[in-house]
This record gives sequence, C-alpha cells and structure tokens, in this order.
Amino acid sequence: MRAGPSQEEVRKHNLGTLLRYVHVHGATSRAELTTRLGLNRSTIGALTAELIGAGLVSEAAPRETGRAGRPSLVVRPESGRIYAYALSIEVDRIRAARVGLGGRILEQYETARPPGMSAAEAVRPLAGFVSTMRSGVPDDGRCVGSGVAVAGMVRQEDGMIRLAPTTGGVEEPVGEALHSELGEFGPLRLGNHADVCALAEHARGAAVGSDNVIYLYGDVGVGAGIVAGGRRLHGHGGYGGEVGHMVVNPYGRPCSCGSRGCWETEIGEHALLRLAGRADRSGRDAVLAVVDAAMRGDSQAQHALRQVGDWIGFGIGNLVNIFNPEVVIFGGTLRDVYLGAAAQIRSRLNAVGLPACREHVRLRTPELGADAALIGAAELVFENLLDDPLVT
Amino acid sequence: MRAGPSQEEVRKHNLGTLLRYVHVHGATSRAELTTRLGLNRSTIGALTAELIGAGLVSEAAPRETGRAGRPSLVVRPESGRIYAYALSIEVDRIRAARVGLGGRILEQYETARPPGMSAAEAVRPLAGFVSTMRSGVPDDGRCVGSGVAVAGMVRQEDGMIRLAPTTGGVEEPVGEALHSELGEFGPLRLGNHADVCALAEHARGAAVGSDNVIYLYGDVGVGAGIVAGGRRLHGHGGYGGEVGHMVVNPYGRPCSCGSRGCWETEIGEHALLRLAGRADRSGRDAVLAVVDAAMRGDSQAQHALRQVGDWIGFGIGNLVNIFNPEVVIFGGTLRDVYLGAAAQIRSRLNAVGLPACREHVRLRTPELGADAALIGAAELVFENLLDDPLVT
Repeated sequence: MRAGPSQEEVRKHNLGTLLRYVHVHGATSRAELTTRLGLNRSTIGALTAELIGAGLVSEAAPRETGRAGRPSLVVRPESGRIYAYALSIEVDRIRAARVGLGGRILEQYETARPPGMSAAEAVRPLAGFVSTMRSGVPDDGRCVGSGVAVAGMVRQEDGMIRLAPTTGGVEEPVGEALHSELGEFGPLRLGNHADVCALAEHARGAAVGSDNVIYLYGDVGVGAGIVAGGRRLHGHGGYGGEVGHMVVNPYGRPCSCGSRGCWETEIGEHALLRLAGRADRSGRDAVLAVVDAAMRGDSQAQHALRQVGDWIGFGIGNLVNIFNPEVVIFGGTLRDVYLGAAAQIRSRLNAVGLPACREHVRLRTPELGADAALIGAAELVFENLLDDPLVT
Repeated sequence: MRAGPSQEEVRKHNLGTLLRYVHVHGATSRAELTTRLGLNRSTIGALTAELIGAGLVSEAAPRETGRAGRPSLVVRPESGRIYAYALSIEVDRIRAARVGLGGRILEQYETARPPGMSAAEAVRPLAGFVSTMRSGVPDDGRCVGSGVAVAGMVRQEDGMIRLAPTTGGVEEPVGEALHSELGEFGPLRLGNHADVCALAEHARGAAVGSDNVIYLYGDVGVGAGIVAGGRRLHGHGGYGGEVGHMVVNPYGRPCSCGSRGCWETEIGEHALLRLAGRADRSGRDAVLAVVDAAMRGDSQAQHALRQVGDWIGFGIGNLVNIFNPEVVIFGGTLRDVYLGAAAQIRSRLNAVGLPACREHVRLRTPELGADAALIGAAELVFENLLDDPLVT
C-alpha cells in the first residue's frame, strides 16, 4: 500500500502521459492533448516545453487547418533522434533494428539463424548489426537502451533463457552475453517473443482499445502474450503465457518439454506438416504450401488443416473460458493456418467455449506482421523513458 | 491515458490507503502507519482526524507499551458500527451475515437450499435474514451496502446469472430480485463464489502477499478466482476464471455445459463419488467419507482419490504453465480431496508443469474456510468505501 503521489511525482506522471500519448498516437495538436489528457492549456504548454527542452518532442504549426483563427500547435515525437535498438532472436532468423520514439522502424537488418545455433551464439551477429547501425546514427541521436525479443522463456532479472523448447536450449545466459556486447548502449531488457508481439499489437495494432487480449504465436513452438485487465500477464517469474504447454490431449504425442499431448504438439508446424505428409519440410514456406494445397483441393492437406484447426479451436475455447477475452490474435505461421481453417476453429471454439465467455470474442490476424517483434522489443525500453521522461 | 491526480484526489487516495490499511491489518499505531504509508506524522494525524470525523475509525492509547515516552495512539476500524450485508447463494445452502469494517463477521444465518430451488427463489429467504439482522443493528450503525456471492457466472452490470451449471439455472435475473428486496441498504454488488473467496484469501488468508494466485473452488462444479499481477482477473464481461470448463479429456464424459471432458467432469464431486462406487450420494460429507475410507485402506476409495488427484494435478499443471503463480489454494470439497491426494497431485503437476513455471508454486488449503465467501462478498462493497471513504 502506498500513499498518494507528491506534486513532483504528479508532474513526472503528467510528462510521461503526454509523451506516451504522442508516442502511441503520433503527431497531436495541443488542443487535442488538452482534451485527451484532461489538463488545462497552460499545463499542456508547460509540459510540452519541458519535453522539447529534453529533446523528446518537437512542436510546429500544422500545415493547414481550413479553419479561421490561430491554429493549435502540433506536438510530435522526435522519432529521428530518440531511438532504441531492437533485437530479435527467432527460431530461424536473427534481426536487429533501430526503432525511433513513436514506434517507427528507422532501419533493420536480418540474417538466417542456422539450425543448432544457440541463442548465446546469436549475440555476436546481433552486436555486429548494432555496430553497423551505430556508425550511421546522426550526431544528435540519443539511444535509450536495447530491447530483445527471444523465442524462449526468459528470466526477467538477468536475461537467463530457461527453456527454448523449439531449439533445445536450456539455461543459456543470453542476458549476460548481451550485456558485455551492448552494455554501453543504456539499459537492456529482454522479453519473450509472444509477449513483446502482444505488447506491440496492443499498443498500436490489432488489439488497440481491448483490455483482454490473447496473442497466440506459433511456428515450431507455440506461446502466448496475454493482456488481462489492460495489463500484460507476467506471472511470478515472468514465465506466464506458456499456453503451448497446456496439455490438450492426454493421449497425444510426446512433447520436447517431457510431457505429452501439449497444445504445441497438436498445432505446431511439425504437426501440420506431418499430417499433410510433408514431415521432411519445415518453416513458413512449407506451412503456406500446405494451406495453398488445401485451397486447391488437395485432400491430405485439407485433412491436415481440419485436424490442426480443430485442436486450435479446442485450445482457444479453453483459454476463452479462463480469460473471457475480447480479442484473440493469431501470429507467426498460425496466422496462415487460421486463415485456412477459420471455420473449423470457430466451430470448435463455439463447442468448447461457454456462451458468456465467448460471446464478444473476435478472432483476428496481426496488423503489424513481423515488425511486431521489433516494435515490441523497443517498447520494453521505451517504457522506462515513458515512466520518467526527464531521467538521463 | 489519464493525467496525474489533483491535490484533492491525492487526499482522497491517502484517506483510502489509511483506511484500507487498518481494514486489512486491524488496529495499527500511528507510528506504524507513518512508516508503512510513507507519509509524515502530521499528515497521518490529519487523515486520522478526518476518518474519525466520518465515524470510520476510532483512536485510543495502547494498553501498555513497555517503553518509556508517550505511546503512539492506536487507530482501529469501527467494526461494530460500519458494516456490510454479505449474502451467499451456494449449491446446497444459503447464508447471510453482517460483516464489520475490518472483515469481522458480526452475526450470521444459514438455511439449506433444497435441490431445484433457483437462485432467484433464494432471494426471499435472504431478505428475511437481512430483515432479522436489521432489527438488531445499533442506532449509530451504518450499512455501506450488500455484497452477494453466487455459485454461477454473474454479469457485472445487472447481476444476471448467465449460467449456474451446478444447479441448471440459466439467465436468472437475481440482481433485479435482490435490488427490489434490498435496494434500500445502499449499493448492491454481486460476484462469483470462487472470485470472492479468492478476494478474501488474498486480502487476509492463505495468499496474503502473493501477487499471482489461483483459488480453485470445487463442489459439484469447479471454478477459480484468479489474481494476476496483484489484481483480480475479470475478463471482458466478468466471466474469467471458468477453469472448470477447460477441457482436459477430449474423450471424457459429457458435461452439463454441452461440451465433453471438462475438468469439472473429471474432478468434481460426482466424478469422485462415481469412481468410489457411491454415485447415489452427494455433498461434502459424502466426499469426506471417501477420503476417510481411502485413509483406512478401502481400495476402491483409494483408486477414486488417485484418479481424481491425477486429473487435479493435470489441470493445475496447465494453469501453472499459463499463469506462473506463487500459490494455488484448494477450496470447497477440493480441500479435502487435496489433503487426501496431495502426493498424486504434486506428482502430476510436476510432470505437466514446466520447471520455470512451477518452481516457486506452493499448494495450500484456505485459511478462512467457509467464512471466505461472506468476508469476500462484504469486501465487494467495502471496496467502494475504501476507494472514497468520505462519500456518503
């Protein structure tokens, strides 16, 4: 229990609220800020002046208003100057970007992650990308830190990867390796891939305005980023959302985690490709090929898609009963599977989900695509800045 | 997004924080309040004076301090004066109580709920209890409202019961009936039985200090009250936590909800009694008899307990992977089943739960027993008072 904030804390909160508004919504007139934030004009003016002084926003007259009278100045985030490094260690690739305040990707780099490359080994090429980007940063640029999305379970306090089922890594000290390579660029924060995608889609994608969201991400593995009551679900150690290891089929196949019949074993890439008679292939293109083949009438591909769609709807039904969400988003290759099996998924969801729990749920595809991981990773460090904009 | 609070809002927040502290922790010295709330002595003095003026707390010298110097005054909630009516519509009984500020049950009444009695029909006897209690309230007593715990899915805005699977009721306008019987006693708030028990155990029972809690309640039906990141999980319409309708066995028995193999069908009372060869019995005593028989070596009872324990651990494993909680509490008859099958439950939980998700989880029994439903129901209305103590 904490007592109410001091005047100084209120001012800090207001600065953060204003900066967060333009970070999420982009250029906004002072008049609109006054309305949206419920503060008077002179307060908005003073807050804006402080943020301009700190180089975080700029202000200019709008191009044209079409209305008489003095137009309200427009406040915009300094996206070119204030940036974060966003890194993403995925199952089959490694990406790095510079993301400007306001969530704009300024530049990005990508390389394949060969099978067997550990997450710790991925740190070296990432550091190379950062070094390249660094050389081109304008002189007045300011880095607020680095955010990293990792396909795996990440311990918050030190960035230890506890389990990366899809690549077999266990207890890899990735945070430590990143610190020694990138420590000079400000704070470093790591997050699970699905969690940061959920963060991005919730802030500026398919789940804007929804307080209860399940972002389901699948490729070889399956995980979820969950927003409940407007806030991300972390759990005690930050490992919440491991829905891929919800057992849905007690009589199902062994899972890499040691259990059996996990949702991941029924709806992950391997399951679809095996059912489609293509167990020798892998990756997004192979999944897309199955969906295409099903569309063209290939009966084995259709059967595979129906089967996987049925298990997807089944697990979503369980999650809907547990979370009563407004939106479920299908990311990764599950996006393509969802588009190919939407009717099947909805039908099974309706059978498993209780009417009251499912009556308002919308099934969606992501709006930010693969950018979500980078934008979300950057968001992890922008959060620090938005909590206290004038800290340096 | 909201701007920071005004001075007036800060004062209201501080009043609420102080009142909440003594409501949860009981009599507390001014010195300790100063430390705990991080406010200075004169502010604590002023806030206390306001709360005394509103009749919400009283202040007195402590009996004995054993230390030299002027002892710090002790602030205590006015439990005898400020109260809420707490009502509980359960599967087999109906209860009503008067609960004082501070969570103290001042008096309580109970009657059986005959099979087939709808929740709406239970309103009449509840109103009778309230009328009885009302006649004995001291002249300076002040009722802050009525809280109602219902075994069923409750729509927040109007108290419509959407589904009470255990008694077969669907779409019962209980809120409306309660309003017309009890409307004169201030605000009326309804909550799901497991949700309000979780609220009570989190505030003053087995989950104090834990931010991620699953309170599992079972009798004929199974549901959960869930706390994630320190806040109750509601979901979009308030229907979150219906874990009893998570399907765990796709090849299992039909459930009353229309689905098949729901967790409730595998771990509810009916399952245990059927497996123990006692399908003709029901209720808590029948469940206790099975646990007792198993302890005494009855092999069919042991088999039933093992089987049900296995499914309990299985579902808890799923929930642990999803929520990464610190505490799981077993309430209702699941308390007795848990005590009789703890090893089985833990073993299956360990097989299904990922190590990182389960490593810190504690399995517990409730500390408040059957009082939790009444204390939690009262808490629903005390929350209004704590949010704004001086509103009348």
